[in-house]
Amino acid sequence: MRILHHLPLSPQSRLARLMLGEKRLPCELAVEKIWEPSEEFRRLNPAGEVPVLVEDSGMVVPGARVICEYLEDVYPEPPLLGRNVAERVEVRRLLDWFDGLFQQEVTVNLLGEKVMKRHFGLGHPTGSVLRTGYKNLRYHLDYIGYLAETRTWLAGPSLSAADFAAAAHLSALDFLGDVAWATAPAVRDWYSRVKSRPCFRTLLNDKVSGLQPPPHYSDLDF
Amino acid sequence: MRILHHLPLSPQSRLARLMLGEKRLPCELAVEKIWEPSEEFRRLNPAGEVPVLVEDSGMVVPGARVICEYLEDVYPEPPLLGRNVAERVEVRRLLDWFDGLFQQEVTVNLLGEKVMKRHFGLGHPTGSVLRTGYKNLRYHLDYIGYLAETRTWLAGPSLSAADFAAAAHLSALDFLGDVAWATAPAVRDWYSRVKSRPCFRTLLNDKVSGLQPPPHYSDLDF
Repeated sequence: MRILHHLPLSPQSRLARLMLGEKRLPCELAVEKIWEPSEEFRRLNPAGEVPVLVEDSGMVVPGARVICEYLEDVYPEPPLLGRNVAERVEVRRLLDWFDGLFQQEVTVNLLGEKVMKRHFGLGHPTGSVLRTGYKNLRYHLDYIGYLAETRTWLAGPSLSAADFAAAAHLSALDFLGDVAWATAPAVRDWYSRVKSRPCFRTLLNDKVSGLQPPPHYSDLDF
Repeated sequence: MRILHHLPLSPQSRLARLMLGEKRLPCELAVEKIWEPSEEFRRLNPAGEVPVLVEDSGMVVPGARVICEYLEDVYPEPPLLGRNVAERVEVRRLLDWFDGLFQQEVTVNLLGEKVMKRHFGLGHPTGSVLRTGYKNLRYHLDYIGYLAETRTWLAGPSLSAADFAAAAHLSALDFLGDVAWATAPAVRDWYSRVKSRPCFRTLLNDKVSGLQPPPHYSDLDF
């Protein structure tokens, strides 16, 4: 069976899970504590990061972006990286946006401080860093809201990896109760559509020891 | 004429220039001072980053990774993202490596401190950050050396975007005199092969006001 080495709250892992689910590719999940990486995991991915996909054939595909491209290459249906050149550019621009800007400006400051810092033994969250994260999140919610208001899906007329990348980050933050949905109704409407996809179900059932998501986390009608 | 909005020392811009050059796609360069972005540039790329490619058709392609995928999609010859599935995974893994780890651990600490910090009005380089950058660079040179010793090109048997991504970062650092080539002979041999490609020539002629590269920077036989 195909295996995805992952962490439940890692947005990059969540993106890979959503891509696999939407393409109906069954997959076993293996939690990988990247803060105490095994020799074996280092061999799978010298970068020491999740997710890493291992196919039945033994093919190893490390990294969310690489997994997205690989899945589209080998299992093209349904297409999730755009249906023509212009759409592919826009989907990949948004993958860059969430993997780069959103990750650095929001996710590292909130999820990184509250969860990963503890795992890596780096102490408690720093208030000023959290405040920066919340401030940046407001700006990013505005941008996502603008996209959601002007397009059917974030990258254009079709559901794509861009929606999954955004929803992967927001769902991980939502698990921490960090998303002020009431302030961003257009984002909430779009997110509830993504959340209703069958591929999203496993994310909503995630359990993380020591953390309790807010009740609305798994509610499709939040 | 096709236009690439860029910065001469930006490794991401250099990667895009090398891809365009190797695919023999002529292109005009426009320097973009991202620390004082124009409204027009923000419209081209809301992320405010270089490179951004603008095609004659008006198609806008922002970001080095997006440009690599776009060029391979539209101008497939010569292939630079791998010739089969396994090669494509490896090329993209290394693009991730240089765009992610190398950028964060080395480039931000050296080029970021010495050049970009000044442009953004954030003051002088911090000694401890530079030391971290040099220390990390040694580790990364070891890894590039390991790849160069065990393969013809970094990602496998064929020259690829992975070679250009690595050479883009190293060439920008070399402009600052930051690469201790004598300590990494396998990297130097591989780099001198990349440096001899015709597409590399424009990088070696780059002029940056207030900065003088070391004499070996443009020497093919360094």
